[in-house]
This record gives sequence, structure tokens and C-alpha cells, in this order.
Amino acid sequence: MSIPAPLAHLIKELSRLPGLGKRSAQRAALHMLTNPEKIDDVKRALTDVAEQVKTCTTCGNISLSDPCHVCNDISRDTGTICVVEGVDDLWAMERSGAYKGVYHILGGVVSAIDGVRPEDIRIPELITRMEKDEEVSEVILALGASIDGQTTSHLISRKLSEFENIQVTALARGIPMGAEVDYMDEGTLHMALKGRVKF
Amino acid sequence: MSIPAPLAHLIKELSRLPGLGKRSAQRAALHMLTNPEKIDDVKRALTDVAEQVKTCTTCGNISLSDPCHVCNDISRDTGTICVVEGVDDLWAMERSGAYKGVYHILGGVVSAIDGVRPEDIRIPELITRMEKDEEVSEVILALGASIDGQTTSHLISRKLSEFENIQVTALARGIPMGAEVDYMDEGTLHMALKGRVKF
Repeated sequence: MSIPAPLAHLIKELSRLPGLGKRSAQRAALHMLTNPEKIDDVKRALTDVAEQVKTCTTCGNISLSDPCHVCNDISRDTGTICVVEGVDDLWAMERSGAYKGVYHILGGVVSAIDGVRPEDIRIPELITRMEKDEEVSEVILALGASIDGQTTSHLISRKLSEFENIQVTALARGIPMGAEVDYMDEGTLHMALKGRVKF
Repeated sequence: MSIPAPLAHLIKELSRLPGLGKRSAQRAALHMLTNPEKIDDVKRALTDVAEQVKTCTTCGNISLSDPCHVCNDISRDTGTICVVEGVDDLWAMERSGAYKGVYHILGGVVSAIDGVRPEDIRIPELITRMEKDEEVSEVILALGASIDGQTTSHLISRKLSEFENIQVTALARGIPMGAEVDYMDEGTLHMALKGRVKF
């Protein structure tokens, strides 16, 4: 084969990342090869991320500190916890500017097809957090409108029903079926957050 | 902003690569963050590429050796030089299996809009190569069918007309207008190479 082994390996590593196909990976690798300073830039950026970015032990958010900047923010309402699938969903919620509570990141949703069980994502951590923190009065489920997202919402709702003082709500049905929270525009998130209903 | 600075920086670096948009870069960065061994894998792959991959001083190909594995291959016809825009075009030609000569990689095409002059790409190197190597009998122009590709072909053809013993040919018009060599399937490249005409 005419592609040198280390380059072929880099293309393979890049093409395994979500969001990149074989051709994008090839173009990116060739671009970096012809711009050697770019290789150093990307390596430095990767090192910085690995060394400086931490996962918040409270909510699962990523940040420069633990607890994260959201959990540390005293202006936020710690009595309301918004449960999201991933960090990108948290970013989308923050972009909307409509939410002033704190978060709980699951790191996935329960899925029969992918073999993801409730204990594989941060559901036990959410329960422990409820048990420890008696201030919490509302849990907002902000998971995607997919089958797996809805299943996970139901499961969490059932588990939280043992806490009498906690109201479980879900984002309003402004989110189209099958779409992910992460992809929503600010306006839709606003609507969905404002119109949230008892779960 | 809720995205930690080092992560935002990594996303920016990645999104600057050709083939990646902002969202792909974000997904790739988050994936690496949640799979820390992936960061090391990509860093190692980048280091290997930077340390081991060389540019051939003869043809401009990238390889583990200089001269590259194509120039070093004694079974190849060094009397025929195929001029391509980039390394990915060379890979596409090699995939077709229809070509047994050697290459000359320009590293771009002349472009009035992008301000790329003939001396900015490896055209002077091609002329020097012709002057040094009296064995060359044919130069095949395998540039894209875009305006810039065609302009570059004409320019090279004119410069090579001073060499009496060299026949300048171009890939047959099997390549659709506006498309790049790199994107062609093996069959089309076969046809185009077989039906090449005097330029």
C-alpha cells in the first residue's frame, strides 16, 4: 500500500472518532502532515485537555475544577437538578440561558440494544445525591425524545418516586420525536423548559 | 462560557482541520475526553507521523524513506512521470493499479483567486528534474478538471515544450468537469489513463 504505516495508523485513529469518516480523517491527517506546526498544536491541545480538564464528582460535568464551575456557582439554585445525557446537552442548556439550577450528567441512556444498564450510567449517583442532599425539591428530566431517552426518564422517575418531597418534571414536548437535546436551538429549549410538566 | 478553556481550544484546533466542522470537532473532543486512552493513542499517532514520515526530495511523495518507496521501486518505469496535485491523488492512482511509472507531486495548482503562483508549487522542481534526467520520455498530466487544474496543465505543457524528446499527455476526458482526481473510482481512472491523449 502506498500510504506510509504511521500515517495510515493516524488516519485510522482519527476515523474512529465520532463525527469523522475515512475521507475526513485522511484530509485532516494530510493537512497536518503538510503543516507540521499543526501537529504540535493539536498535540499540545490534547495534552492540556488531558492534564487540566476534570470530571465533577458531584454532577459529572467537565470543568477545570472539581466541583465544577456550575456546582461552585453560589448564584445557582441547588434545589433544582436537571438530568441530561451528556456534557454537550449541558452546554446546549447553558446556551439557552433559561436555566439557573444545577445538573446531573448521566453519561448515556439505558439501552437494551447497546446493552447499557441503569447501573452503567450515573443513575446510582443521582439516587445517592438525592439521599445526601435534602435541599433538592425538583428534578427536571431533560433527556432526548428517543425510545432510549424516554425509557431512561421513566426509570429515573420511578426510582425518584420514593423521595416524597421531590417533584419530578420533564422538558415540555417542544422537542421533536427522535431528536437529541444537544441539537435543539435556544428558542425551542426555552419553550421546553418553560412548559415543563409533572412527570 | 461553560466549555473549559483547554477543551474549547482543542475543539477549535480540530475544527480548523479540513473535513471537520464545529460539531464534528466537538463530538470528537468529547469522545476523547471520556476515553482518556484515546488521547494518548492520537498523540502517539501524531508523534509517529511527525518523526517517521518524510517527504521525497525527488517526487514530493510522503513515505518512510527518501527517496520514497515509489521512486525506489526498480520495477517501475522511471521514463514516465505522472504529475498530480497532491498525495491523495497519488494514492488514488495507485489504487487503480493501472500505472507503473513514477510521480511528481505539485502540492497544489496555480490559482489566481488563491494567489498561488507557478513557483509556489513544485513546477520549478519538475523542470529541474527534466533537465537532470534524460531518460524521461513522457509526462502525464493528471490534474483535476477544474479551471485551476486545467490552467496548471497548460502552463506545465508550455514549459515542457522546450524539451524535444518529452511527450506531454493528459488523462483522458473520462473525468467529469469540476471533479478532483482524488475522488475518482478505480474504473474511471483506468479509462482515463488508457485513453490519454497528446496534450
